Amino acid sequence: MTEDAVDVNAKFDLFAEHWSPKLVARLNDYEVKLVRIKGDFVWHTHEETDELFLVLDGLLTIQLRDRDVVLGPGQLFVVPRGVEHCPRADEEVRALLLEPAGVVNTGDAGGDLTAVVEQI
Amino acid sequence: MTEDAVDVNAKFDLFAEHWSPKLVARLNDYEVKLVRIKGDFVWHTHEETDELFLVLDGLLTIQLRDRDVVLGPGQLFVVPRGVEHCPRADEEVRALLLEPAGVVNTGDAGGDLTAVVEQI
Repeated sequence: MTEDAVDVNAKFDLFAEHWSPKLVARLNDYEVKLVRIKGDFVWHTHEETDELFLVLDGLLTIQLRDRDVVLGPGQLFVVPRGVEHCPRADEEVRALLLEPAGVVNTGDAGGDLTAVVEQI
Repeated sequence: MTEDAVDVNAKFDLFAEHWSPKLVARLNDYEVKLVRIKGDFVWHTHEETDELFLVLDGLLTIQLRDRDVVLGPGQLFVVPRGVEHCPRADEEVRALLLEPAGVVNTGDAGGDLTAVVEQI
């Protein structure tokens, strides 16, 4: 690997906390973030944007109001804008997120799990 | 996995050709594509957009005019807009691409390797 390439596994070694996405790359006005997920998040909606989850490790359930979307390693799902969702994982999941810059992780819900995104 | 989730490996089983990105998901006005890479591409530039390569399998060299960026599995690189580049792989690489809808794979270069993007 060479300068300014991003090694995803090496980036995951830099943090341990759950539900706190870390910025690792920018693409125009979009951001690539890595996140560790464990337990239940909060139900929330992003009214202004779709949100992509790509699972790298573990089993992630994205609860929607009408069904659950279950993702394993190498599986991805785009939550459409305006669709209420709540991620959940019994065991730790490592996932890559993609969304426009400035999207707040808790969307319209706010609360204690709202994270300030740090670049690593 | 559940309906409308995307299994990356299963999608790769649907095509074999090189240098022909396949659309597997949309995120707002961006597209997630999968591509098999082998051999040398053409030098080209995307004047209007950055372009993200995430290598899933194999070893990809993204030649830039001033250096090579070498990516293995789980490594990503964003080619900045306006930067001339030429991907190359001695053995087959499987990669995920992310860029705005409508980006032409050969950028300003055109030619025989220009692909029409099919959704799979």
